[in-house]
Amino acid sequence: MKILRILATVTYAFSYLSGVIFAQGSPVPLAATGIVSPEVHSDRTVTFRIQAPKASKVQIAGEWMSSNQAERTVNGTEMTKDDKGIWSATIGPLEANTYIYSFDVDGVNIADPVNPIIKLRARTSASLVTVPGDQPWEYRDVPHGNVEVNYHRSAVLNNSVRQIFVYTPPGYDKNASMRYPVLYLLHGNGGVASDWTNAGFANYIEDNLVAEKKSVPMIIVMPWGHALPIGAPTGDNALLFEQYLLKEVIPKVESKYRVAPGRNNRAIAGLSMGGGQTTLIGLGHPDMFAYVGLFSHDMGADSAKYKVLNDPKAAAEMKALFWGVGKEDPRDPGMKKLTDSLTALGIKHVFYEDTEGATGHVWPVWRKCLTQFAPMLFQNN
Amino acid sequence: MKILRILATVTYAFSYLSGVIFAQGSPVPLAATGIVSPEVHSDRTVTFRIQAPKASKVQIAGEWMSSNQAERTVNGTEMTKDDKGIWSATIGPLEANTYIYSFDVDGVNIADPVNPIIKLRARTSASLVTVPGDQPWEYRDVPHGNVEVNYHRSAVLNNSVRQIFVYTPPGYDKNASMRYPVLYLLHGNGGVASDWTNAGFANYIEDNLVAEKKSVPMIIVMPWGHALPIGAPTGDNALLFEQYLLKEVIPKVESKYRVAPGRNNRAIAGLSMGGGQTTLIGLGHPDMFAYVGLFSHDMGADSAKYKVLNDPKAAAEMKALFWGVGKEDPRDPGMKKLTDSLTALGIKHVFYEDTEGATGHVWPVWRKCLTQFAPMLFQNN
Repeated sequence: MKILRILATVTYAFSYLSGVIFAQGSPVPLAATGIVSPEVHSDRTVTFRIQAPKASKVQIAGEWMSSNQAERTVNGTEMTKDDKGIWSATIGPLEANTYIYSFDVDGVNIADPVNPIIKLRARTSASLVTVPGDQPWEYRDVPHGNVEVNYHRSAVLNNSVRQIFVYTPPGYDKNASMRYPVLYLLHGNGGVASDWTNAGFANYIEDNLVAEKKSVPMIIVMPWGHALPIGAPTGDNALLFEQYLLKEVIPKVESKYRVAPGRNNRAIAGLSMGGGQTTLIGLGHPDMFAYVGLFSHDMGADSAKYKVLNDPKAAAEMKALFWGVGKEDPRDPGMKKLTDSLTALGIKHVFYEDTEGATGHVWPVWRKCLTQFAPMLFQNN
Repeated sequence: MKILRILATVTYAFSYLSGVIFAQGSPVPLAATGIVSPEVHSDRTVTFRIQAPKASKVQIAGEWMSSNQAERTVNGTEMTKDDKGIWSATIGPLEANTYIYSFDVDGVNIADPVNPIIKLRARTSASLVTVPGDQPWEYRDVPHGNVEVNYHRSAVLNNSVRQIFVYTPPGYDKNASMRYPVLYLLHGNGGVASDWTNAGFANYIEDNLVAEKKSVPMIIVMPWGHALPIGAPTGDNALLFEQYLLKEVIPKVESKYRVAPGRNNRAIAGLSMGGGQTTLIGLGHPDMFAYVGLFSHDMGADSAKYKVLNDPKAAAEMKALFWGVGKEDPRDPGMKKLTDSLTALGIKHVFYEDTEGATGHVWPVWRKCLTQFAPMLFQNN
């Protein structure tokens, strides 16, 4: 059989490549040039390549570096050119995880031209590479939930057209009488509504946790966090986003999906800029949210504003307070300081410091934060 | 009010930018460099810009050009450099539509580094620019359906992990007893499962047609068409894809969604490579599909293989046969020839030739094909 013969030759391309957008994936060689990038080796090193014969300097930068994104783009690893004009560099070994990376070609910062796995952003774009290793954010053979995109025009946000990504857990379609608790999950500055699925694999994380009975099946709601144009002050953005979430997103979700009512069935978490929004919305409305998770956000002196962080009696009403951060993130010391002061005040909370692999201000940390936080939610409702 | 003051300064960014992935969108200026690309002017011309001070030659190529994709990348419009190293070119005026484009910087073909609106592909990537004009594929203030991503591991396809994008029409969630007909909608070579939403706006097209009562509300199913690795012969790929669609996709869809049964509630259409698959699957299984649409696919002598194209009695059992193509597409003459022979045989069908705007082998044509085809479906069931 011709088909069977061809199937027998199919190798790595099938293992990871899927419909691309939301999935982790390995690249397909670009037929025209034969260039493979990235190439993930079994020792967890990764070779990156780009054909740019006329370039005089090419760098590769990615989330394995501990520095911040802006610094990474100018402090990348220099690549070396062969006689065909193909630049390459091998990085690692890296912890099994997924990393954002980009090339700098003579000062032009670009995604990998031959890698179809893109990290979408609200401005610019970059590529993603996965070093596989049976991590809890990888696709496994367990029942899978759906990711749905809801479209609407927002009255609160100047009539802009918005998308709300919604994960419904495995079984949602079949258990027509069951109502589910909801986690509102927010992305960082420059991110988009697809961030937590495209880069965070929140859907796979929850699928896997549910399969292991570590997490209660829940709906996860992922709106777009830029209420104001990119570049607007994040504080102003958070104030407007709060109105959007409370007045439009939550009512829309609760009217459309089978949502369990009340604060004990509502959680909120966010990373970086989304952590700031979570502070404002989650800690500011303890009557609405019983669970709050901050990933890589140092609220600094703002902690004084929130009763649940200063009054052990009010704090006891919270079912979970979670802070997570990577040890090389510049926000780590500030978050540690807060956790110490909360402990001194007798306020129950969880501090998770990621010390393995890439521990900067990066997605490898945030996937672990969600993997830690989700099992704390809705267990005793 | 500080928020109100900031809101007053918000201009174009709100009109089009949304959560990015599936939506049409205008770009956000890159704060770091101040470069705006693309800039869509009110006269429907578009200025593209890229900062590449060290480059010696930069070109812009896009779907407004009639040539094929491979040719476009080497025959683009040369851009001119200013004293800051910013290259620019103004194209158009263009028909109101959305166009894929990319830059060639000294031989490196890349997406626009500052435009977040990406055309995802199975290899490489490119950018999208929208010239707005109240077209039927644009977001309008009508009830909106959902786009859902279903994840599964395919036994037919060597246990690869696949995504199936599914559009459910407005009202699907509320009309819990209603069953819907289904259109299986296939992408082209090098495409991904998100193609028909990311680039084709099939969801907006159907939302708008339903709102105007031109189309029956239907489910649209968009699987990933690469059953074999990219670069495998499309004929071999189609044979395997046929098994996947018939044995896995359709049963999965019909067990999960509220699907109306039988051939009269099943349509199939595809563009280019997906047109070849549609030929094989749709015309080869007239017992399963009563509606078949080919977009920019010339089946040539293969038409002799299909009874419904050679026997007016068998053809009369088909509720719609539709061919659509752009007049500058190299496939146009072959498709015209077939339509003439079908007419001579007395076989009822529709031939749609797009003669306005970009009429090559491009998405501007395929959006129009779907806009023409969808109203023919399921009207008298």
